[in-house]
Amino acid sequence: MSSQDLVRRNIREMQGYVSGEQPDTAKFIKLNTNENPFPPSAKAVDAIRSAALGNLNVYPDALSSAFRIAASEILQVEPTNILCGNGSDDILTMLTRTFVDAGDWIRIPYPSYVLYRTLAAIQGAQTEEIHFNSDWSLPAEFARTDKNPSLVFLPNPNSPSGTAVPLEEISKLAESLPCPLVVDEAYADFAETNSLELVRQHENLIVTRSLSKSYGLAGLRFGFAIASESIIAEMQKVKDSYNCDSLSIAGATAAIQDTDWLNENRQKIIKLRSELDRDLVELGFHTVPSQANFIWCQHPNHPALSLYEQLKRNHILVRYMDYPNWGDGLRISVGTANQNSALKTILGSIID
Amino acid sequence: MSSQDLVRRNIREMQGYVSGEQPDTAKFIKLNTNENPFPPSAKAVDAIRSAALGNLNVYPDALSSAFRIAASEILQVEPTNILCGNGSDDILTMLTRTFVDAGDWIRIPYPSYVLYRTLAAIQGAQTEEIHFNSDWSLPAEFARTDKNPSLVFLPNPNSPSGTAVPLEEISKLAESLPCPLVVDEAYADFAETNSLELVRQHENLIVTRSLSKSYGLAGLRFGFAIASESIIAEMQKVKDSYNCDSLSIAGATAAIQDTDWLNENRQKIIKLRSELDRDLVELGFHTVPSQANFIWCQHPNHPALSLYEQLKRNHILVRYMDYPNWGDGLRISVGTANQNSALKTILGSIID
Repeated sequence: MSSQDLVRRNIREMQGYVSGEQPDTAKFIKLNTNENPFPPSAKAVDAIRSAALGNLNVYPDALSSAFRIAASEILQVEPTNILCGNGSDDILTMLTRTFVDAGDWIRIPYPSYVLYRTLAAIQGAQTEEIHFNSDWSLPAEFARTDKNPSLVFLPNPNSPSGTAVPLEEISKLAESLPCPLVVDEAYADFAETNSLELVRQHENLIVTRSLSKSYGLAGLRFGFAIASESIIAEMQKVKDSYNCDSLSIAGATAAIQDTDWLNENRQKIIKLRSELDRDLVELGFHTVPSQANFIWCQHPNHPALSLYEQLKRNHILVRYMDYPNWGDGLRISVGTANQNSALKTILGSIID
Repeated sequence: MSSQDLVRRNIREMQGYVSGEQPDTAKFIKLNTNENPFPPSAKAVDAIRSAALGNLNVYPDALSSAFRIAASEILQVEPTNILCGNGSDDILTMLTRTFVDAGDWIRIPYPSYVLYRTLAAIQGAQTEEIHFNSDWSLPAEFARTDKNPSLVFLPNPNSPSGTAVPLEEISKLAESLPCPLVVDEAYADFAETNSLELVRQHENLIVTRSLSKSYGLAGLRFGFAIASESIIAEMQKVKDSYNCDSLSIAGATAAIQDTDWLNENRQKIIKLRSELDRDLVELGFHTVPSQANFIWCQHPNHPALSLYEQLKRNHILVRYMDYPNWGDGLRISVGTANQNSALKTILGSIID
C-alpha cells in the first residue's frame, strides 16, 4: 500500500498553492508579493520584543482579546464582531470550513486571488469562476442565484488588477446572494473606500483584513475578520484553539493602535504608486489604475514572461501571472523610491 | 435568513473545543494546561528578539526551512521528513484534512485528548472511541480492521493518564492498520521512549511533536510532524501558505538546537514529577505513574470537582476532567518546587 492511497482523492489530485518566490532578500529587489517596502511601526517591534521577555511558556490568549479590543475601538465595531487569524489566509480557511460542504460551490471573480481555488479544492468543493468585464467591473452574472453558491469571495481591491468594485454594488450583491459574501480587503488600506460600514447592514457580509500589506507585517502572520456576532461565533468553532501566538498578538495590537504610522505609510505608498504608474506608462506599458500597493501592467511590444525573466536576471523580482483562458501580465508591487527607480532603469534598458 | 442557516450542519451542531482556563497568570498558580513552569531557553528568546529587528515586512519562509534543517540534524531524519505547523494543533488539523473525508471514521482511544473529537466534527467525520483497559493498556480491539478507519490517533504518552503504550505494540498497530497511525508525542520528551525510529519502518506512521510543553514555548505556537517524504508532501498541500511566522521559526530553531537546555529542563521536570506524585500519594490520592509533565489522580474520599473548586478559590488551577461513560478526576501539571509545595499545603488543608 503506497502512502498516496491513504490520502483523500481531492488532495491527491490537487496541486498545492504556489506562492510568490521568496529568494534571499539581500540579493533581490522584491516587488513580487505585495509586501510593504518599509519596516513596520517601531511600536509594534517594541511590543514584540517585550512580549518575548514575557511568559512564553504560557499559552496565548485564545481569542487574541487585546487585539480585538484595540481594533474594535479603531474600527468602531464590537470586539465580538472580530475574529483573529494566523494571517488572513487562516481566516479564509476558516471561512471555507464554516460554510462550505464537499460538493458545494464557491463563487469567485476571475482573474483574482489564486488561493481561493486551492481552498475550495482542499474542502472538496467546486469553484465557479466568473470573468470580470474588460474594464474590471463585475458582470450581473456575479449576483445570479440560480446556482446557489455556499460562499462568494470578492477581493476588493482585487489582485492582480488593483481595481475596486463600488460599495453600492457590493451592498446589492450582499442583498441578493443566498450565502455569505466575503469582501477580502487585504489591500483596502490603500483604497479610497472600504466595506466596513456594510457589515452593520448585511448579516451575510464578512470583511477580511490583513496586517501583511498596509502594516508592513507579512512576517508576523496576522489577519482578522469583521462580521456579525453570530457569524463570528460559528467561525470560532473551527479555528485552532490557540491560532495566534503571544508575539503576534502583542505586535498586531501595537500596530493597529499606531494610526499615525498607518496614515503616513499609506500616503507614502499611494504617492510612490502614482510615480510607478507614471514611469510604467512612460515606458509604454498599459497599466490599470490601482487602489492597492501594486500595479498590473502589460507591454504591447514585449511579452510579459520575457520581461519577468530579464528583470529576474537583473535581480528584480516582479510577479508574472498567466491566467488560463484569460491572458498574462506583470503584477509589480510598489517599492521604495530607490527600488522603483532601479526598476525603471532596468526596464528602460530592456525595452530600449 | 439567519446567519445560522448559512453554516454547515456539522459546524452548527457542534460545540467548539474548550481549552483549559487561562486567567490572569499573575494571580493564579496555573497547573491546568500542562505548560512548562520554567521560562524557555534564553537562546530562543534572543533569537526571537533579533528576528523582531529583521525583515518583518517580508513573508516568512513558507516551509520553515531553518527549523527543518536544524531539527533534521538533531532527530536524525531528512528535512523532507519534517512538516512544521502553527502549534501541533495545526498539524493535527492538516492530518484530518489530508486523510479524512466527510463521513469517514477516525479512531481514538478513550479517554484521551478531547480535541480529536472536535477535529473529526469539523471535518464531518465520525469518531470511534475505544476505551483503554483499566490499566491504561490498549485493548486488541484498537487494531481491528473491519471498521476501516481513515485515521487513527494515539497520544503517547496519553492525556489525561500520562501513560505510554510500548513501542512494540505501536509497531504492530502500524503494521495492521489500513490507514495512517498518528502517534501524538506532545509529551514524549518527558517519557522513557518515543516512536521516532518507527517512522523509518512504517510508511503509515506519523509522529507529531510540540514545542509547547518540553521547550516551554506554548506562547510561540510551534509544532511539527515527522513522517515519510511522500506523506509530508501530501500534507504540505493543505497547509496555509505561510503557516509559521518569522519570529516563531527563529525561536523554534534556536530552541531545538539548545539540547543542553532541553536535557536539563527534562531532568528537572521528571524530578519534580516524582516529588508531586509522592506528595499526592501522601495525601491519600490514587495516582497513575506518569511519563508526561502532569499527573492524573483521584481521591477516594473527596470528589474531584469539589477539590478543583476549592483549589481554584485558593488561586490554584488544576484541570478537572469529566469523561462521559467513564469517570472524572484531576489532571495536575508539574509545577516548580514552590508551586508544588503550595499545592500540597492547600490540598492538605482541604483534605484534612
